Formats: sequence, C-alpha cells, structure tokens
Amino acid sequence: MAKQLLGKPVADRLKERLSAEIEKRRRMGKALGFAAVRVGDDPSSVVYQGRLVKAAATLGFEPLEIALPEESSETEVIEKLKALGEDEKIAGILLFMPLPKGLDKDRISRAIPIEKDVDALNPVQFGDVMAGRSLWAPCTARAVMEMADYYEYDLTGKHVVIIGRSDVVGRPLAQLMLARNATVTVCHSRTKDLALHTRSADLVVPAVGQAGILTGDMLKPGAWVIDVGINVRPDGQGIIGDADFASCEPICEAISPVPGGVGAISVTMVLEALLRDQD
Amino acid sequence: MAKQLLGKPVADRLKERLSAEIEKRRRMGKALGFAAVRVGDDPSSVVYQGRLVKAAATLGFEPLEIALPEESSETEVIEKLKALGEDEKIAGILLFMPLPKGLDKDRISRAIPIEKDVDALNPVQFGDVMAGRSLWAPCTARAVMEMADYYEYDLTGKHVVIIGRSDVVGRPLAQLMLARNATVTVCHSRTKDLALHTRSADLVVPAVGQAGILTGDMLKPGAWVIDVGINVRPDGQGIIGDADFASCEPICEAISPVPGGVGAISVTMVLEALLRDQD
Repeated sequence: MAKQLLGKPVADRLKERLSAEIEKRRRMGKALGFAAVRVGDDPSSVVYQGRLVKAAATLGFEPLEIALPEESSETEVIEKLKALGEDEKIAGILLFMPLPKGLDKDRISRAIPIEKDVDALNPVQFGDVMAGRSLWAPCTARAVMEMADYYEYDLTGKHVVIIGRSDVVGRPLAQLMLARNATVTVCHSRTKDLALHTRSADLVVPAVGQAGILTGDMLKPGAWVIDVGINVRPDGQGIIGDADFASCEPICEAISPVPGGVGAISVTMVLEALLRDQD
Repeated sequence: MAKQLLGKPVADRLKERLSAEIEKRRRMGKALGFAAVRVGDDPSSVVYQGRLVKAAATLGFEPLEIALPEESSETEVIEKLKALGEDEKIAGILLFMPLPKGLDKDRISRAIPIEKDVDALNPVQFGDVMAGRSLWAPCTARAVMEMADYYEYDLTGKHVVIIGRSDVVGRPLAQLMLARNATVTVCHSRTKDLALHTRSADLVVPAVGQAGILTGDMLKPGAWVIDVGINVRPDGQGIIGDADFASCEPICEAISPVPGGVGAISVTMVLEALLRDQD
C-alpha cells in the first residue's frame, strides 16, 4: 500500500502557523483585509470565492467579497483594483479567473500591487517568480512544494517530471523545484514518449487536467506522485485526478489522492500569501 | 563523421539580414547607436568589448565605446546608463559583466530601458523572458536557437537536455525551447545521474563551463550536441568546449565545435538585439 499524501494535515499545520501570525498581526494593528474580487458569474469562481471567503474569516482575516457586474469595463475593474491596492486595511487581493470576454487579464492584473498580489497574477510578479526573484508563485505550485515538504520528501538531486507547462502550475513549479536542486523535466501535449520520461522520475507531478494521463506502467517502482489534476468523473459524480489511482497506487511509494490531496491545500496557500510582507 | 555545426555560416546569414535592416533604418533616420559600457578593466570584458565594437561598426552601427573607472559609484554608473537610455541616437546598451566589487548588478541594470536592453540584463526584461512574454533572451541562449534553426533542427517533441541552470544560458534557454514545443530537462551540479538524462536526449546543450562533462558514452546514437561551454585548454593554448569532442563526435549526428560553434554567433546575436524595436 502506497502512502497516501493527504492534503488535510498539510493544510491544518499551515493553518496553525497562519493563526499565530494573524493573531500577532492583529495585536500590531496590521492589515488583515482580504479582497476576493470576482467579475461576472463564472460558476466555479462563485464556488471558489465562497470557499476562500469562508476559510479566510475562520482563520481571522477580514474578507471582503466583491462581485463586479459581468458588463464591467476594463477601466472600471482596474479602478476597483487600484482603490483596493491603496486601501491600508487590505493585505491582499485575489482576482478570480477567467475574466469575462473582452477583459485583458495582463493589463488588468497589473493594477494589483506586487505586495498584495496573492496569486502571482500581476505579470511583473509572475516574471519575478520565473526569474527566481520571488517564491510567491501561484498557489497551486506552492501547494505542491508544501506537500513535498510536509511529507519530508528531499528534493535535492531527485528527478522531477512535471506534466504540463501552464502559467499557473507547470512552469512556475519547475522554477521552484530547480531552486530546490531537483533535476526537472517539463513534459506537455507535444511530448513524444511521455512514459520514457515518467519512468525515470523519482517524483511525477501531473498537472494537465486530463484524467488517466498517468498510469502505473509509466512509473518507476517506488516513485512519488503528487497529482494536481482536477477532472469531473466520467459519470459526472465528483472529481478525479490526472493519475489513474488504481494502477499507480500499487507501483508507487506515495501518491496524493484526488479529492483530498493538493486541492485541499490550495485555499490555505492563497491565504498564506496574505501575510507575505512579514517575510 | 558527424555533421559539424559551424557558427560562421549562421552568423554570416544573420549579418546579411542585419545589414539590410540597418540600411533601411539609416534611410529612415532611425537610431543606430550602440553603447558598449564597461566599468573597470576586467580583461575578458576588454577583449569582448573590442570585438563587439568592431563588429558593430563593420555592420553599419554607430558604436560608442565607454569605459568608466573601476572606482565609479553605483550612482555614477546608473546616471550614465540613464543618460544613454534617454539619448535618441542610442538604439541599444550593453553593460559588461562582471561589474567591479560593490556594484549591485540588479539595481544598476534596472537603469537600462527595456527596449534598449540588448542582453536581458534588466531584471524586469529577464523576468519577461522567463515568463514567456519576450523572446529577447540573453544572447547566448538566442544563439543556440539560431543555430538549431539554421541547421533546420525541428525542436517539436524533441527531448532537449540542458546541462546548467544559469541566468545567462540554462534557465532562459529552457523557456525558449519549451516555447518551441521541445520536452526540456534541466540538469545541474546537483543532478545525480547525468548520463541517465543525456542518454535519452535528442539534443544535449552543455552550458556549465566544465570541460569534458559530456562524453560519447553519455549520448544516444544520432543525438545532436550544441556546445555552449568555453574553457581554457589544460595546456593553456586556446579553448575547448564542455563536450569531449573526440568521444562525442563518432556517436552523434551533429555537433558544434569549440571554437567555431556557438561562440562565433554570440556577438552577432547581441547586435541583432539592437534592432529589436523593429519587430
């Protein structure tokens, strides 16, 4: 039986640390406001916003749930973000993606000040992450690192194969892993023989959103799998990861389940970034 | 006999293209000035500056050879760069590295305006490269791409193993290669079994400055090698690359020699970046 890399204990430990910091910050009179800004009514953003706001309040932050109308102009969204950026009570800002059609993500995200940019949406902040000048990467990439650390996986010299080259996971994660002395391979849709790469990996991180892209026969015995994929089950009931759990689990030493793995950490990682100016 | 990936024809073709553009630019009255700024008397910078200035003049640019004294203050260097940045006759600026001790590279390089930053020294420009928002990477990384293109090496789906994770070659090159749909592995000093990775590579790019780090037994038959390494020969006579040419050449399909390979292109790549605002 492979070890299950559950997200909940990782999130719980992080929450404890955050609670202590929040309390300290409250006593010092520092900002604890969290602006969760949604434009329009994308259904998954509505759900995610609700979860984040609730988790923030539970931890002791002061969430501000903002919903701008679908038909907002670019200028209106930018003005709102600028006002929040200047608001001394706001510690961090998250703008939910995707934005309604016609709104430019890069131009709008530049209105979020770097030090309040909790998910590396501002392209300047994203560039800093990619250039190795900031570790405040997008929250899912940080969640993978947090999980590896919690389960005491020593990354030095390990071969890490990341499947996916997205801006939110694959590419920034590769930089975080390199900074920790892992040997990193980034595979993607144009990779010819995916199994050739995964079979030499000590740790595989599938992050493409394609159920079953990683199967047990593609793993080296004893490998670790941290599954970032979130896919709706074929029967529409619940979610599954990118790794085929049934075939991977007997081969690997440790694997994170979906649900209950990385996804259970991401919200807390966003909230951790609200305290980044304390570093 | 492996095909020799010579740098000269690559540089020659590029120079032809540049000459045409320079002529066009001259007729339009556009800036052709190239500020080559050295602080102090680092011997290899002196040589490199001389080569660059000569090549720039030959092509039709108007080089400005600037040597600031070793004891210049950070403010003095920044003021000089700012003045050049504002000078309408200057198309591009190169600040030679290393700077004298006590001068901060990142702070100083920020004074070079992005559009005149010919070697991605400004950390904001470097972040743009790493984030995939700019292809104007440091010149050696671009030289590798230019060589692959000249010799019509189709990168799509190929496994490229880069040895070295420096800011000037390894890390930006990985992004350029990923953008061209290669599967990319970045190895480095902490990689445990380098040969394991290079043996599955279609293209190996050693870029660490360690003679003989790549030998023929570490290659898949038919692989390509683009050697970025420049090392002084053990006998002190001339230079050699990172690949052990004698053992690699019989195994691979193509290999770039040192000298005469990538190094023969780099200077021209810097000059190409003087015309970047035309893109």
